[in-house]
Amino acid sequence: RVNGTRLMETLHSTCEFGKAHPWGTHETETGMARLALNDDDKRVRHWLIEQAKALGCKVTVDQMGNMFVFRPGKNNTIPPVMMGSHLDTQPTGGRYDGILGVIAGLEVLRTLHEHDHQTEGPVGLVNWTNEEGARFPMVTVSSAVWAGEIPLETAWNCKEVTATAGQKPQTLKQELERIGFLGEVPASYTAQPMAAHFEIHIEQGPILEDGGLKVGIVTGAQAYNWYEIEVKGRDSHAGTTPLSARRDALLAAAKMIVESNKAAKEFSGLVTTGIFRAEPGSVNTMAHTVRFTLDARHPSDELLAKMVSRCREVFEKVAKEESERGVEVKWTSLTENMAVQFDKGCIAAIEESAGEVCARFEEAASGRKLWTYLTSGAGHDSCNASKRCPSAMIFAVTREGMSHTPDEYCSPEDCITSADVLLGAVVRYDKA
Amino acid sequence: RVNGTRLMETLHSTCEFGKAHPWGTHETETGMARLALNDDDKRVRHWLIEQAKALGCKVTVDQMGNMFVFRPGKNNTIPPVMMGSHLDTQPTGGRYDGILGVIAGLEVLRTLHEHDHQTEGPVGLVNWTNEEGARFPMVTVSSAVWAGEIPLETAWNCKEVTATAGQKPQTLKQELERIGFLGEVPASYTAQPMAAHFEIHIEQGPILEDGGLKVGIVTGAQAYNWYEIEVKGRDSHAGTTPLSARRDALLAAAKMIVESNKAAKEFSGLVTTGIFRAEPGSVNTMAHTVRFTLDARHPSDELLAKMVSRCREVFEKVAKEESERGVEVKWTSLTENMAVQFDKGCIAAIEESAGEVCARFEEAASGRKLWTYLTSGAGHDSCNASKRCPSAMIFAVTREGMSHTPDEYCSPEDCITSADVLLGAVVRYDKA
Ligand SMILES: NC(=O)NCCC(=O)O
Ligand SMILES: NC(=O)NCCC(=O)O
Repeated sequence: RVNGTRLMETLHSTCEFGKAHPWGTHETETGMARLALNDDDKRVRHWLIEQAKALGCKVTVDQMGNMFVFRPGKNNTIPPVMMGSHLDTQPTGGRYDGILGVIAGLEVLRTLHEHDHQTEGPVGLVNWTNEEGARFPMVTVSSAVWAGEIPLETAWNCKEVTATAGQKPQTLKQELERIGFLGEVPASYTAQPMAAHFEIHIEQGPILEDGGLKVGIVTGAQAYNWYEIEVKGRDSHAGTTPLSARRDALLAAAKMIVESNKAAKEFSGLVTTGIFRAEPGSVNTMAHTVRFTLDARHPSDELLAKMVSRCREVFEKVAKEESERGVEVKWTSLTENMAVQFDKGCIAAIEESAGEVCARFEEAASGRKLWTYLTSGAGHDSCNASKRCPSAMIFAVTREGMSHTPDEYCSPEDCITSADVLLGAVVRYDKA
Repeated sequence: RVNGTRLMETLHSTCEFGKAHPWGTHETETGMARLALNDDDKRVRHWLIEQAKALGCKVTVDQMGNMFVFRPGKNNTIPPVMMGSHLDTQPTGGRYDGILGVIAGLEVLRTLHEHDHQTEGPVGLVNWTNEEGARFPMVTVSSAVWAGEIPLETAWNCKEVTATAGQKPQTLKQELERIGFLGEVPASYTAQPMAAHFEIHIEQGPILEDGGLKVGIVTGAQAYNWYEIEVKGRDSHAGTTPLSARRDALLAAAKMIVESNKAAKEFSGLVTTGIFRAEPGSVNTMAHTVRFTLDARHPSDELLAKMVSRCREVFEKVAKEESERGVEVKWTSLTENMAVQFDKGCIAAIEESAGEVCARFEEAASGRKLWTYLTSGAGHDSCNASKRCPSAMIFAVTREGMSHTPDEYCSPEDCITSADVLLGAVVRYDKA
């Protein structure tokens, strides 16, 4: 069993780096704004290196700033069984998304260390850079480079969308350099192979809580694509330009967003616009340019493609037929992620461990099963890892299914339960 | 007659202060970005003081930074006949909106000076601060304070919406202080009374050009109101939050904007959204807050009120019934301007002058009338002035009716024609 008190103390103490958006009276009742590669991310990274070294572990930083912590086993010629997640957060993020996965992994290493447990092969922990894609709008970009899915240069050149006021947007590489985490080791599964990748993450959905369950065993993730849509019209005077003479980029973009929501309903998928910028931004002048994002998801690759095609069609129609003198619309793809199936062996290890951990709860006395299989609605670094090594995930209960919001919450009991499941899964997988 | 070459040279040379957005190859083929009270506005203000002094005129700056230039007449115990407009521009503005009115006023003063013409009473020029409302979102705010329509403190406290990157938004008063144009004279029609207010402005609409006309005599302006709409929902994860569980502020705002356009069509008015901001602004997180503006206009005060009421109704419906788990919507009024009728005496003076000036054109030989009465689609400082002194406006031809865009254009001939009409109107009104 992990040390639950230590796990929770560690989690909350690292949240001092980047805490923001208080929502309650207790000092831990705040959210987070630890955007990838900002100064708080730098601080928590240095903290992680210290903790790893205190356990006698080796730390490697690759060209994407991914941090690998290795604890040697009996045979160190075989690749390590890794636990991983991310320490970056949304601008109005919570204390659990990503953070729980890394801190629980560290807690597993601490528990092994404390009990002087010798694993068969090495066991380790990875902190993936810019998982959220909130600052640099390529989600899970660093595990994607590791998996050979995205060229290093493409990732390095990604420009931030949340530039600090007064500064010109930096690239991911510039920020890696600035905070001193541009490593020399290639970001690649060949340079840093893994025997397996296990990840705890909060569910970020309501199924576990609604079902009175303790643990989710994630068997795969839905497909999702991100796009930036640029709408170009013409700036002109709001008081003197008749409606019929307009090329109003903002009105057209609003119509497109409403249509994209209809497409989501038609295909039973999800479409969301989170970023919307209008230029020049003056009350009595029509926007000449609007840029907005689309986040489109579906459990089926095929239906995702159809839903996106529908959006393309209706956007074109809005641009050509429903915007008076017409606007132009241009799509740029930011990320495309196929649906993922996780590894049966990893799932089996988690399932055995979850069975054992769940048996300790009163509710299990009647024989009730306290875990369930789940498909992830969100993308995770494990989806990329799964392309190059056996992978699977453990979901922890999320209050009201709310995530990417400051009051995102996973109770200490649920955090500790998931960490115990991770410990058991890793030890089992290593043994096997 | 004014000196047309000097008028155009002066206009373009002052556009060096704040020129931006080139659209053609000639050096004058650029737009402007001289936002109220920025460094370029400061420069052009100092330039204006020098020009006024060179003509032996007195310059007064009031508490709103309004600049009054006075040229003495025979009897200086009576209030001056003023010409006025504004030197501030839109962020993607042109070289004529406002600027033509001030530079033409200066050219009239120069012409009087050059001919040693003694007027009956004093004649003068006013440069009104922040007419556009582009930087500080209260349009024609400084003439409104002068007219006693808005309290000085309210105007002073108006915060900029176009903050320079890296700086926290400044108030109008802070910026007046910073550029040294916070005068001591009260901004009031009692402290600075006027016998009349004449303003040249580009039409900003297509009627003159389409009709092959030279001059518009503006008999009034339509009513218009500005609002900021705040929509509050909940930030949550784009991949894990079912559509039915959402409180998506951005989707709701998009629906509202689409509905506001329907309301504009229903009432044959205009509704425009020029500013739209979404927070927190992350691809995979729903916005918790959106703020957008509405610019609503109608020639009839009554129908404007009805059109805005319709928007309030439909926005409430979108918020309560068409946004899944609901959003909240809050309206803040930024400015409300009733429809305006200009003064018959001022209109008559312009009409006489326009008749004389237009007679010089070949097209007039057949007896064709080259001027027409117009109602202004835009608001102007003259609308506020008209509440405290006889006022009217002269419209100059605007290419394709395009304004609030860098390639806004009024030909040298049309600029000079309007300045000649202004000269004649002022001299006639002064005599009468
Ligand atoms: N888990 C998570 O929030 N990851 C970000 C990628 C996504 O948007 O699904
Ligand atoms: N003329 C002009 O553009 N003034 C700004 C006020 C308005 O938006 O009507």
